[in-house]
Amino acid sequence: MSVLVVGSVAFDSVKTPFGQVEEVLGGSGTYFSTSASFFTDVKLVAVVGEDFPAEHLDFLRSRNVDLAGLKTAEGRTFRWKGRYDYDLNEAQTLETHLNVFESFRPELPPEYRDADYVFLANIDPELQLEVLNQVKRPKLVACDTMNFWIGGKREALLKTLRHVDILVINEGETRQLAEEPNLVKAARSILAMGPKTLVVKRGEYGVIMFSEHSIFSAPAYPLESVFDPTGAGDTFAGGFIGYLISTGNLSESNMRQAIVFGSVMASFTVEDFSLDRVKTLEYGEIEERFRKFKLLTEFEGLA
Amino acid sequence: MSVLVVGSVAFDSVKTPFGQVEEVLGGSGTYFSTSASFFTDVKLVAVVGEDFPAEHLDFLRSRNVDLAGLKTAEGRTFRWKGRYDYDLNEAQTLETHLNVFESFRPELPPEYRDADYVFLANIDPELQLEVLNQVKRPKLVACDTMNFWIGGKREALLKTLRHVDILVINEGETRQLAEEPNLVKAARSILAMGPKTLVVKRGEYGVIMFSEHSIFSAPAYPLESVFDPTGAGDTFAGGFIGYLISTGNLSESNMRQAIVFGSVMASFTVEDFSLDRVKTLEYGEIEERFRKFKLLTEFEGLA
Repeated sequence: MSVLVVGSVAFDSVKTPFGQVEEVLGGSGTYFSTSASFFTDVKLVAVVGEDFPAEHLDFLRSRNVDLAGLKTAEGRTFRWKGRYDYDLNEAQTLETHLNVFESFRPELPPEYRDADYVFLANIDPELQLEVLNQVKRPKLVACDTMNFWIGGKREALLKTLRHVDILVINEGETRQLAEEPNLVKAARSILAMGPKTLVVKRGEYGVIMFSEHSIFSAPAYPLESVFDPTGAGDTFAGGFIGYLISTGNLSESNMRQAIVFGSVMASFTVEDFSLDRVKTLEYGEIEERFRKFKLLTEFEGLA
Repeated sequence: MSVLVVGSVAFDSVKTPFGQVEEVLGGSGTYFSTSASFFTDVKLVAVVGEDFPAEHLDFLRSRNVDLAGLKTAEGRTFRWKGRYDYDLNEAQTLETHLNVFESFRPELPPEYRDADYVFLANIDPELQLEVLNQVKRPKLVACDTMNFWIGGKREALLKTLRHVDILVINEGETRQLAEEPNLVKAARSILAMGPKTLVVKRGEYGVIMFSEHSIFSAPAYPLESVFDPTGAGDTFAGGFIGYLISTGNLSESNMRQAIVFGSVMASFTVEDFSLDRVKTLEYGEIEERFRKFKLLTEFEGLA
């Protein structure tokens, strides 16, 4: 079992109330791949510049991420600079330099075209479509997007969504995509656009998953030190999709467990800058936090 | 079993994106009493003006709320005017006329002084203390407050908190009271001020309860029509405390069920203006929604 992910690999410079870092490893593809790698094999399709250090490639390889689809292009790697204030739910983007990402056209190595499971991280919906066009007959397509594409490339995005099984976006994006302030109504309208499942990320408030006949709500794990929220959403998606694939079981009950595994992974990522916390993470710690999650939400039903 | 509540009885004028009402029944004491009355007997200590209509008194009596402690004073009833935009989490206060509430000094009828269970709704902490001084030996004291008192009457509030078992406040108030942005750290610091349990209300994101050795997180019930959030917090507290008292069981497991009953009650209140939805509510509907709540949050643990 493996998941094919297309997304960004980047250098992030981040300032939070608790510290700051310059040009550390980041990007949606990186966070997703690393997180998913705890549960399944990963094939990463992305582009980096000539300035991308071997050290980061070695790290991804050490996580068993297949890099046959990672292109090195002439020029500089994608860079993002952002800041968080005490309200850690909202990043303020200070700078974005697309660099090699600007002219990126995802090209799947031939052996990737049989992929059963695909995650389209947050990139131009036209590129997401190009990826789908290169994959033969995937069993499951999951997808992220953002306000920029919902506003600027709505038609292309709606076209992509017709082929998507699971859409993973945040709360504001949900309202924007559906043009509806009420989340339950917005979810219903998005489920009519193609996805069978909508997973809404709510930052420190957790996640709510909508499907035709069911709603599942999971809190975020309450942490004493949220150091840097960068990558939390992609790490969540990696754990969610990674666990789902590893079991090959797309039942409602298994999707719920997968949501919790995703939330557990995100709770580790935010404990340090970049992927630093995840780099030392062991599977036993994931299971231990999953159990705490269960205790966090459990209550007795009525007799 | 009964709960003694001191709080406000008011006329509310409210505008939401879905409609508006003028001078309808409101107030923290009213919402709390009505909600708690589904689970236990209630004794209400409050004040109204000469303009308060018999119809509202009849309604409270129909809910078996004991009005021996409700004083009618010369002058006009407390009035509040507020507005909500699409972000229904935050009320904008347009007008507050304390009227008879301005010179209110709670005086407990002699037969109230044996109260086992006390809820101090959001009023001046000095008045909350006066109430506590008139009660002999309560088994449980729960309390609400607001930013206005946390900022303006901190010393009196801290004095009150020493006698409080359960503090029920919202997220912003939690951070303000503890002077700490991280919720988990803030909760720990508040638990050192007196309360053994802190219940943090998070609007559409639900509730999180902290006690020395445990955290419990419950979502809000996802609704397609949130009509008017006024009174949701007091309705939550009424269901929470009311259920707790009705069982006489203050165990962690029962507190969790009580949190869900409170959340269920709040989910009904916001479906219509004022107490209109709760007026027609039947106990079977409460249990039905409790069961849906269970389905909303359930997931399988690890083997």
